[in-house]
This record gives sequence, structure tokens and C-alpha cells, in this order.
Amino acid sequence: MSTVVLEIEGMSCGHCVARVRKTLEQLPSVRVEDVQVGSARVEVGGAGEVLARVLAALTDAGYPARASMAP
Amino acid sequence: MSTVVLEIEGMSCGHCVARVRKTLEQLPSVRVEDVQVGSARVEVGGAGEVLARVLAALTDAGYPARASMAP
Repeated sequence: MSTVVLEIEGMSCGHCVARVRKTLEQLPSVRVEDVQVGSARVEVGGAGEVLARVLAALTDAGYPARASMAP
Repeated sequence: MSTVVLEIEGMSCGHCVARVRKTLEQLPSVRVEDVQVGSARVEVGGAGEVLARVLAALTDAGYPARASMAP
């Protein structure tokens, strides 16, 4: 499992926190550690988790990175 | 496959671009589309790609997010 921090736009209140938590909890292979306005902390996947490995490899190479969906 | 944008810290020159490209190209299930100073665009994983699904689910729920490794 890899622990990942999510910076999340558009959250403003407890309703948003609940909705984001529900969205995350419905995803397989995701364990929600914490949700706050604007951010969350989750554990994702396992050895096959590609994007977490991407972030880890860049960090190890000296280039910390953030990932987002392409528009 | 999911296309993901990476915002990358610490890049300043063509040497960095080459090093980041090499780092990314060595990872399984990653296809490098583009690398520039400060960013890259990659295709990652398949149906099992958990973190890409996290970003997509939050975007679909109205909360665009960015992911980074937990410190």
C-alpha cells in the first residue's frame, strides 16, 4: 500500500467532506485515512499501483511531483 | 490507460528533462507522452490503476484533485 495526499479543489464545508469521503470509500483498493476541507489522505493499491510508483520514482530521483487527471 | 499530468518540482534544464524522462521510461505500465521543465504527461496502468481512478472519481464528483506521496 502507498499513502498518498490528495489536494482537492472545490470543498468548502462539512457537506463536501462527507461527499468526498463517500466518493473515496466507494472505490476498491482505497482505504481512507483522513478527509478535511481541501485535502484527504488515502492508502491506495498494492504492488501493481502504477501511478503511486511514478510519484515515488520521481521523488527518489529528486523531483517531487503531483499528479492530476489530464484535461 | 489513464492520461495523467505530473507537476514536477526541481527541474531547471535539459539535463533534468532527460533524467525525468529516463526515470519515467524505466517504470512498467507507464508510457511517456511528453516531458518539459516542470511537467510531464504520461499514460498509466489499466483497469487496475487505483490512484488514477481516485483522481477521476473526485473529478466526476466536482472536486478536481492532485495527488502526491505522503511525506
